[in-house]
Amino acid sequence: MRTDGRRFNQLRETTIETDFTKHPEGSVLITVGDTKVICNASVEKKVPPFLRGEGKGWITAEYAMLPRATAQRNIRESSKGKVAGRTMEIQRLIGRALRAVIDLDKLGERTIWVDCDVIQADGGTRTAAITGAFVATTIACARLVEDGVIDAMPITNMLAATSVGINEQGDALLDLCYEEDSNADVDLNMVMTDEDQFVEIQGSGEEATFSHTQLNDMLQLGTEGIKTIFDYQRDALGEYANLIKGSDNHD
Amino acid sequence: MRTDGRRFNQLRETTIETDFTKHPEGSVLITVGDTKVICNASVEKKVPPFLRGEGKGWITAEYAMLPRATAQRNIRESSKGKVAGRTMEIQRLIGRALRAVIDLDKLGERTIWVDCDVIQADGGTRTAAITGAFVATTIACARLVEDGVIDAMPITNMLAATSVGINEQGDALLDLCYEEDSNADVDLNMVMTDEDQFVEIQGSGEEATFSHTQLNDMLQLGTEGIKTIFDYQRDALGEYANLIKGSDNHD
Amino acid sequence: MRTDGRRFNQLRETTIETDFTKHPEGSVLITVGDTKVICNASVEKKVPPFLRGEGKGWITAEYAMLPRATAQRNIRESSKGKVAGRTMEIQRLIGRALRAVIDLDKLGERTIWVDCDVIQADGGTRTAAITGAFVATTIACARLVEDGVIDAMPITNMLAATSVGINEQGDALLDLCYEEDSNADVDLNMVMTDEDQFVEIQGSGEEATFSHTQLNDMLQLGTEGIKTIFDYQRDALGEYANLIKGSDNHD
Amino acid sequence: MRTDGRRFNQLRETTIETDFTKHPEGSVLITVGDTKVICNASVEKKVPPFLRGEGKGWITAEYAMLPRATAQRNIRESSKGKVAGRTMEIQRLIGRALRAVIDLDKLGERTIWVDCDVIQADGGTRTAAITGAFVATTIACARLVEDGVIDAMPITNMLAATSVGINEQGDALLDLCYEEDSNADVDLNMVMTDEDQFVEIQGSGEEATFSHTQLNDMLQLGTEGIKTIFDYQRDALGEYANLIKGSDNHD
Amino acid sequence: MRTDGRRFNQLRETTIETDFTKHPEGSVLITVGDTKVICNASVEKKVPPFLRGEGKGWITAEYAMLPRATAQRNIRESSKGKVAGRTMEIQRLIGRALRAVIDLDKLGERTIWVDCDVIQADGGTRTAAITGAFVATTIACARLVEDGVIDAMPITNMLAATSVGINEQGDALLDLCYEEDSNADVDLNMVMTDEDQFVEIQGSGEEATFSHTQLNDMLQLGTEGIKTIFDYQRDALGEYANLIKGSDNHD
Amino acid sequence: MRTDGRRFNQLRETTIETDFTKHPEGSVLITVGDTKVICNASVEKKVPPFLRGEGKGWITAEYAMLPRATAQRNIRESSKGKVAGRTMEIQRLIGRALRAVIDLDKLGERTIWVDCDVIQADGGTRTAAITGAFVATTIACARLVEDGVIDAMPITNMLAATSVGINEQGDALLDLCYEEDSNADVDLNMVMTDEDQFVEIQGSGEEATFSHTQLNDMLQLGTEGIKTIFDYQRDALGEYANLIKGSDNHD
Repeated sequence: MRTDGRRFNQLRETTIETDFTKHPEGSVLITVGDTKVICNASVEKKVPPFLRGEGKGWITAEYAMLPRATAQRNIRESSKGKVAGRTMEIQRLIGRALRAVIDLDKLGERTIWVDCDVIQADGGTRTAAITGAFVATTIACARLVEDGVIDAMPITNMLAATSVGINEQGDALLDLCYEEDSNADVDLNMVMTDEDQFVEIQGSGEEATFSHTQLNDMLQLGTEGIKTIFDYQRDALGEYANLIKGSDNHD
Repeated sequence: MRTDGRRFNQLRETTIETDFTKHPEGSVLITVGDTKVICNASVEKKVPPFLRGEGKGWITAEYAMLPRATAQRNIRESSKGKVAGRTMEIQRLIGRALRAVIDLDKLGERTIWVDCDVIQADGGTRTAAITGAFVATTIACARLVEDGVIDAMPITNMLAATSVGINEQGDALLDLCYEEDSNADVDLNMVMTDEDQFVEIQGSGEEATFSHTQLNDMLQLGTEGIKTIFDYQRDALGEYANLIKGSDNHD
Repeated sequence: MRTDGRRFNQLRETTIETDFTKHPEGSVLITVGDTKVICNASVEKKVPPFLRGEGKGWITAEYAMLPRATAQRNIRESSKGKVAGRTMEIQRLIGRALRAVIDLDKLGERTIWVDCDVIQADGGTRTAAITGAFVATTIACARLVEDGVIDAMPITNMLAATSVGINEQGDALLDLCYEEDSNADVDLNMVMTDEDQFVEIQGSGEEATFSHTQLNDMLQLGTEGIKTIFDYQRDALGEYANLIKGSDNHD
Repeated sequence: MRTDGRRFNQLRETTIETDFTKHPEGSVLITVGDTKVICNASVEKKVPPFLRGEGKGWITAEYAMLPRATAQRNIRESSKGKVAGRTMEIQRLIGRALRAVIDLDKLGERTIWVDCDVIQADGGTRTAAITGAFVATTIACARLVEDGVIDAMPITNMLAATSVGINEQGDALLDLCYEEDSNADVDLNMVMTDEDQFVEIQGSGEEATFSHTQLNDMLQLGTEGIKTIFDYQRDALGEYANLIKGSDNHD
Repeated sequence: MRTDGRRFNQLRETTIETDFTKHPEGSVLITVGDTKVICNASVEKKVPPFLRGEGKGWITAEYAMLPRATAQRNIRESSKGKVAGRTMEIQRLIGRALRAVIDLDKLGERTIWVDCDVIQADGGTRTAAITGAFVATTIACARLVEDGVIDAMPITNMLAATSVGINEQGDALLDLCYEEDSNADVDLNMVMTDEDQFVEIQGSGEEATFSHTQLNDMLQLGTEGIKTIFDYQRDALGEYANLIKGSDNHD
Repeated sequence: MRTDGRRFNQLRETTIETDFTKHPEGSVLITVGDTKVICNASVEKKVPPFLRGEGKGWITAEYAMLPRATAQRNIRESSKGKVAGRTMEIQRLIGRALRAVIDLDKLGERTIWVDCDVIQADGGTRTAAITGAFVATTIACARLVEDGVIDAMPITNMLAATSVGINEQGDALLDLCYEEDSNADVDLNMVMTDEDQFVEIQGSGEEATFSHTQLNDMLQLGTEGIKTIFDYQRDALGEYANLIKGSDNHD
């Protein structure tokens, strides 16, 4: 039994609220236990310099936490005048993950900015951000199709993420909350598509290590968990889920 | 009649949700029409260098907008590596306003950080932030009293803010939304206490000017509006409102 | 009687020296008591990106203090690598004020940079800066007209500023020196045109508040003071004062 | 056959030169094919604020490239005034990896700074940096033991890293050079101990994905490759290799 | 004959006004032709970390130009967020030069900050700054002695600076104005004491070179010029000049 | 006799290794005693904004030290977010020196970036950098000629640098190592061409001064030393040395 009473292979309660704020092309509030992240997808009609004139688009992500999203207040990165390494690492991960399931040629010369702002943190903010960012991006793209701005849906597959870990007793756990994450020997973030493919795996044992067997246990746990998350995403997306090519094949 | 059907002296629909997130000592979501600001008050057990050893506290505010709080996405200040002049101006205003109604001696050597993060903007974000920040701060202080951390309530008066303006037809308007604000000739922000005193007035006619008569019209409109806002604050504060010295006298 | 022997409604001795340095299109040293500010207006033949191709101009201001303009030396903002909030607030105020009395269409695609550098500070630096900046800007514009670079004078009205306040005894004071400013309960900066219109009012009671009556007393005191300052400006401008449309009506 | 004639499971030629420069406590030049990284370990007699007074040490890494380590010159991060996200990600990885095999209690209140400076880049700079950093750190620690500064060797295990990937034909490749890395569908960095344990795995398919089978193929290839790298490290370390507890058991 | 009618060995008209502003311990406006520099010496009762507890003082300089000190407006270094290389080079030179004639032990644990702010530039700003900075520093030190704060005058010698150059015709010129400096093949800045010793020489032929003979001609011209500048400094210092040990010997 | 057994007029052992790394157009490792500097010349097919469209090129230099090039580790400038004054001073010196012997018209619209990275420091890093930078630049230019990219060799003369100084006993010393440099009263850096002309001399007596006689002694010592360095450069350049116009005349 876990600190919050969950089974080892049980996700936290997860909700995905769409149209959370009114301005963005896609706006989502994802809640995973006590972790809450606003994921806003903004469509801009230009691309970064390295892509100009190539007729294809770009998608990039930014990640931040409100100063008091955490138990202790953190100084704002804008006040410090620089973005922390952890933040950069996370926003690079989110952007990379999204690029694995989007056909940038179909987007035309547009950039999608996905802003993931954590308003309350309790572990797993980066994986919640990826899961929510996918929904926000899909909504933004679906509306570009609806409005006739682009011809075809650029999203090629469903995409979701979760974390798994090994606690001090050696048990593999799904979807770690902050307390579990702090005490875990190993922490592994997984991003997968709905075709059972890995997009990204990042496993790290700070001051600890893990065996091939433990890795396999974690990967299996995470793979099952992500399947459930795809259901939450499909519910949130409604009709839009059907526009995703890969998704069609699996429903 | 105004663009959104309001009367000239009518506030937008305003709600103040307390305990919006779980970590801060005081956490509020204030909604004024389509403007939404999270106001979190954090208590830290130390003071800035210039106050060390003096036995008194400090209160300071920070203000920010999510990149897509607005119709067009704004670049994050953390990415730019510096805080914009507008942001600084606003957070200095919020801090100054709060300091007018808090007895820093009663706070002891503590700093209250008030973070005002706009998640959706439709005009009047700075005045909504002040109104919400006051509620978050009061809750944080009341809990310090409840927990026996400090002896007496340091809040001396209720504090609220609104904006007033003059439109192109020369009418004075209360509580401008973004569209009205963009077209107004004059924009005046008012911060008042529940003893009918001004804490701050900032009136500005970018590319326009205003007469003494117009100023008086605006001040009267704002004074009435703020009285209504005090009622919303008292509802949100519940019992805690009674701990405010000045407030007791006026109910 | 005030600390320096002035009457409540008496300005400090004020001088405006033109052509103070040789390079700028308009260069002024304004002295208000012991406050001394160099105000240089520079004309540049381009506009910021948001105005390109619109055929109109822009005016913007920057404000700084020499490190030892004050009793204690301040660290240079260039050494700290960022501009302080107070500086930003002041330079935004100066720019906004000037834009209220300049017809940017008549300026053509030009930017006027007004640099206000305080070489000695004794209170009221921002209002002295506005008063001096107006003279420097007017000279720069008048010379553009003289040289046939632009057809018509873009300055539409005289513009000047002063500060008023309430001391601890409750008296309203005109043109506060540093010592008075430090002890004042309320500080109000006023910017007006020579048509008796307000351009900007910023009143603030840090750790204090003020009533509507006190506000009116201060506004009246300031209005009278600013009328005198217009005379100093007209003397400094000489012939150039007659080029100002609004000014003509009032001489 | 690969572009440079290697077999799929063949490492590039790897050399580890110790005492490369004279000042650092441990100094190594590691060459992996055309990739060359200087790894310098510096011992400093203090710890970061969060560890002060706890009697234990810290180890941290920094990573950089000479501007012309690459085919195209890159702007220096010092000129840009900020450290790139990629750099932060890499130096955080190196530091985390080293902390998995060092007993910080045995180090006492000391910080080991490991500077990894790439002077020539041809793919795999981060894994070469980890492999070299381990040797430099081990030498620095061994000398602290030799000099009687600390009592016992704080290094608990050998540590090395390599990259594996999947090319466009679907083959798993060991130790990718830059050309292979640019064309690979999947790139996986592995850090392991000499007890066959994972310290860190980071697999990413930018614009591609990978299956569980492909992951296992890559992990097996990498595990074999890293075993060979431990031999190179032992040769470079000489006697010092025997001071490593975990290493003793495996020779 | 030179562009401004001077002889090759003739200085520009030079004046040194003391007590230019009221706050600094030593305040000077030096005018050399059309070059005008405010030099303010501020005494602070602490030293930089590397000198703490050693019982000796420090002297350092900062240099800046008003944005419109020059024919074209320059962007403020505070706006750019960094200090230019030229500025750093100059302020390091001024500080080094002053340290050659001050006995830091006699200063006690104090720092003298010398701020050199160019309000109008016409060539030779760095050498004018050194000459003026010496006077401001001497006044500040003399007042510390007068006030009994320190026992003995820490200034050991007079110090002054000038520039010399070679024009396109090969003539050596003393004290170059901006136009001459721009056209010169060689520019040499000299700092000397009143005992005929060099403190600093910096000669540079950007896109040109110079012979040993030309160097000697320039050095002789500069040595004569600096002798005259010492007279201007002694006039400005009045009685204070007699407190300088080295100076006594030479009057 | 000197601390390392050299005669007063004896250079340290100097080697210049060409093609040190594979990517740059010119790559050199220069070793002067224990000082080691990598000098890489990169050719870029564009020029800075101020030269665009003028048909001529530019050459600029950057200088840095690895954090542990010195006895104590230095914090990286990229971590501090700004380039130190010393670094700026040195890289400006290197760039200026190189521009004295390059005909920028012959280079066409190209920029040569010369990166001087000190991997081990023992005094004289800036002069070693200039000597090495000249060789790297010459190789890069010679290859542009060889490849037919430009028509004629833009290098007009050989260029080399060394340092001289006066020790506490008053002896003039050639090519100071770090220990000598730290104890020297005077330090003079000289840059010369192979036509016996000065390009740059920078002499400084921090907390000391020097006479005209001492200056002449130093200049003579340095002039002789630099002649020897030209021989090392010619050996390193081989055939390429003959492409230098000025050099031809002197062999």
